[in-house]
Amino acid sequence: MSHIARLYVDAPLKEDVEIGLPEAQSKYLLRVMRLTDGARVRAFNGVDGEWRCALSVRGKIAIIVPQTQTRAQISGPDLTLLFAPIKKARTDFIVDNATELGVRTNRPVMTDYTQSQRVRTDRMRTLAIEAAEQTERMDLPQIREAEALPKSLSTWDPDIPLIYCDEASEAAPISQYREHLTDRGAAILIGPEGGFSPKERNLLRELAYVLPISLGPRILRAETAVVSALTLWQSQVGDWQKAPYLPET
Amino acid sequence: MSHIARLYVDAPLKEDVEIGLPEAQSKYLLRVMRLTDGARVRAFNGVDGEWRCALSVRGKIAIIVPQTQTRAQISGPDLTLLFAPIKKARTDFIVDNATELGVRTNRPVMTDYTQSQRVRTDRMRTLAIEAAEQTERMDLPQIREAEALPKSLSTWDPDIPLIYCDEASEAAPISQYREHLTDRGAAILIGPEGGFSPKERNLLRELAYVLPISLGPRILRAETAVVSALTLWQSQVGDWQKAPYLPET
Repeated sequence: MSHIARLYVDAPLKEDVEIGLPEAQSKYLLRVMRLTDGARVRAFNGVDGEWRCALSVRGKIAIIVPQTQTRAQISGPDLTLLFAPIKKARTDFIVDNATELGVRTNRPVMTDYTQSQRVRTDRMRTLAIEAAEQTERMDLPQIREAEALPKSLSTWDPDIPLIYCDEASEAAPISQYREHLTDRGAAILIGPEGGFSPKERNLLRELAYVLPISLGPRILRAETAVVSALTLWQSQVGDWQKAPYLPET
Repeated sequence: MSHIARLYVDAPLKEDVEIGLPEAQSKYLLRVMRLTDGARVRAFNGVDGEWRCALSVRGKIAIIVPQTQTRAQISGPDLTLLFAPIKKARTDFIVDNATELGVRTNRPVMTDYTQSQRVRTDRMRTLAIEAAEQTERMDLPQIREAEALPKSLSTWDPDIPLIYCDEASEAAPISQYREHLTDRGAAILIGPEGGFSPKERNLLRELAYVLPISLGPRILRAETAVVSALTLWQSQVGDWQKAPYLPET
């Protein structure tokens, strides 16, 4: 079973208003997928919903012409992920996973034990686009520039609970916090290898909006903890009561 | 913060009864970790709990001598993962994740849309050992030999619920099945890229022990679905009410 190719475009989607695709997308459709004039593709831009489009080829450039809106615009809950960048490939997984699991805003945070100093937010944005295309998501997650954890905390809106996953200290299962969790939004904080420093732990535990949760009796890698924590939130108060969207094949 | 090295050994752990480690583990401790005579390591074998041991070096071979049992033997719930093998690196992640999330038995199943024909269960066992060492797990997950999905189903114990994650059809959130889920055990079935064939879907949906669950409105990659589904089960009826084990540093 293979679905019709699905593309994010940075242009308005409007019936019969053609869009010339950038070189990389053109190459993908024409050379990798080997699509030809008249092929169907799907396109979304985060604003105008999803459209079925007809492809036309002009030399090396693929042009798409929106024909019918196949899906109205929606966006997921106001869910933020704060994560300490880890090694390159594994930070890539975090961005992929956050996109699949419906994170609206990604905020890389530098912590005392963060090893990775170079944070490639440009690369993260590219990965997030690809993941959004594949996961049938209708909007793109935001990638904020990296900042130091204390700075993120100093400007925090105390109405937004910050779910803090710390494997090296006492914490409650997420079910204990049910009354603090609503679909108005939340943020999840995942640390680097080696967890948080004692200074960071003390800082976090003094903040009333911080909810320390446990992810079970085994130590999870950072990227696994990301998926587990997002799953718990989405299934309890997020958009996981909604059925998956089943695209045309 | 760095923990004392933790090793799985295939030998009885008993006070003062020394164990000569195989070449790969010896090399890791002596050359990679650069440990020397008298260093402390931790060892577990899935039977005798976890022991603090003293290292001694004989040429290129590392010997460990168990000194004190630091943790009694425990094992997690009777949780089985049935998964369709996918591309190599991504199947590796599935094994890692299943180990971290407390799966007792891994069963690779060949489905109609399974691309990967070669199933390296030997490699999976090696990965599972490494993941068990790192996740503070006390037992090793089993890796069964691959078999065809209909064969796995034909010998299924109908008292064990089979949680079936199918993104391309109607299904309920896991919370709808609360009365069917108990800590006596369960299995989770995750398909390959492209999901299940219509024939497989029909077969699965006719079986009374199969619980079709939804993993939200976006399409997840197989390895993400593994983590999400295991998280839901572990947090609702599994061992996630237990606090993490905090090893000595």
